[in-house]
Amino acid sequence: MQSYSHDSRILVALDCIIFGFDGESLKLLLIKRNFEPESGKWSLMGGFLDAEENLEDAATRVLFKLTGLRNNYLEQLQTFGTVSRDPVERTISVVYYSLVNINDQDPVTLKEHNASWIALTNKPDLIFDHDHMVEAALRQLRYKASLYPIGFELLPEKFTVPQLQKLYEAIYDIKLDRRNFSRKILGTELLIATGEKDQSSATKKAQLYRLDQQKFQRYLSGYQAFLPEFTNFSL
Amino acid sequence: MQSYSHDSRILVALDCIIFGFDGESLKLLLIKRNFEPESGKWSLMGGFLDAEENLEDAATRVLFKLTGLRNNYLEQLQTFGTVSRDPVERTISVVYYSLVNINDQDPVTLKEHNASWIALTNKPDLIFDHDHMVEAALRQLRYKASLYPIGFELLPEKFTVPQLQKLYEAIYDIKLDRRNFSRKILGTELLIATGEKDQSSATKKAQLYRLDQQKFQRYLSGYQAFLPEFTNFSL
Repeated sequence: MQSYSHDSRILVALDCIIFGFDGESLKLLLIKRNFEPESGKWSLMGGFLDAEENLEDAATRVLFKLTGLRNNYLEQLQTFGTVSRDPVERTISVVYYSLVNINDQDPVTLKEHNASWIALTNKPDLIFDHDHMVEAALRQLRYKASLYPIGFELLPEKFTVPQLQKLYEAIYDIKLDRRNFSRKILGTELLIATGEKDQSSATKKAQLYRLDQQKFQRYLSGYQAFLPEFTNFSL
Repeated sequence: MQSYSHDSRILVALDCIIFGFDGESLKLLLIKRNFEPESGKWSLMGGFLDAEENLEDAATRVLFKLTGLRNNYLEQLQTFGTVSRDPVERTISVVYYSLVNINDQDPVTLKEHNASWIALTNKPDLIFDHDHMVEAALRQLRYKASLYPIGFELLPEKFTVPQLQKLYEAIYDIKLDRRNFSRKILGTELLIATGEKDQSSATKKAQLYRLDQQKFQRYLSGYQAFLPEFTNFSL
């Protein structure tokens, strides 16, 4: 078999920031490590890229292993590659982030991996450069959520506008005006009224909506979608 | 020395999409390869990550080697990692893109590397997955340029509004309305009038501006900068 003469072959890791939402706060799925290195400390879920494995497949595998979920929102964020980032051995890490519905999780799988949902506001210090990874993922999530409605993966299939507002409040760690938010989000015409009402007391029987998936996909399908409409600096 | 038991150590390449602007069209700095593999074909400028080298340093090195430039706009785009993307050996590639001023280039260095500036509209087919990399970089450039004025690195230090308009027209491959563009770009208050006029005939002695670097940095420094102001879906 052919190969390049360059001799620096390097371990490639994948780390995954998994965001969830429990109706009140934005959470991270974190691992309390019961393996070396850094046993006893907290980290993101990760793994190594195999020689015969596509990068995207490896990310899907890592996510699936911990959550039992496939086909979730999973996006490549950035590759971290400082020489000393992993004290054991030179390793670069391709970082992905994912949005999952906490209720879809299999508690048995979580327990097997010693994993817990922890509110972002209570995040413990993580190993290596994992804190920086979380910061970068949160920045990206906030950035994207400012451009278009995102994060429906974090909600049940049918949701109320107040639930969506709580999600946005959790993402930005702010309080939003109820009327303004409702007007803006309904103004995007991405929500379809189901005609049903939420029966839980918390949301006072508010209207249940679901996302117009087709419209949303068109919405996301390229800069043209929001270039004239969604920026002040439109051309 | 410690190491992980995982045994898939992989070559890590860096590839760099280098955008330039000659006043008329958006160009790419491409290499006509006089080395294997794929000698005689066109590719991006690339290199391998060394074991003792930070990822960002490697990207800077690759860019410097070809352009003789440091401190240019250089941003990590995405990591490409399909198993078969490089037929010689499994190699993942961390892709960066850079914006440079064509006039800053050293012609000798370019010749040494068999490199040429080629208009995006005339781009030849590139090796491996390099065409996909260019597409992704162009998408990112267009996306960013729709959010805020970007691309000043592609212009001389002092420039006219018509020159900036031509740059935007080249980035999007469209014609823009002169008045509208001028109103919007001056409305950002990111340009400082130098009091000088462009003496070249092409721009009819238009006012020369320069970028307000401090304001621009604040502008870019996080989603907060444009969250309330630069999106329709602001909270």
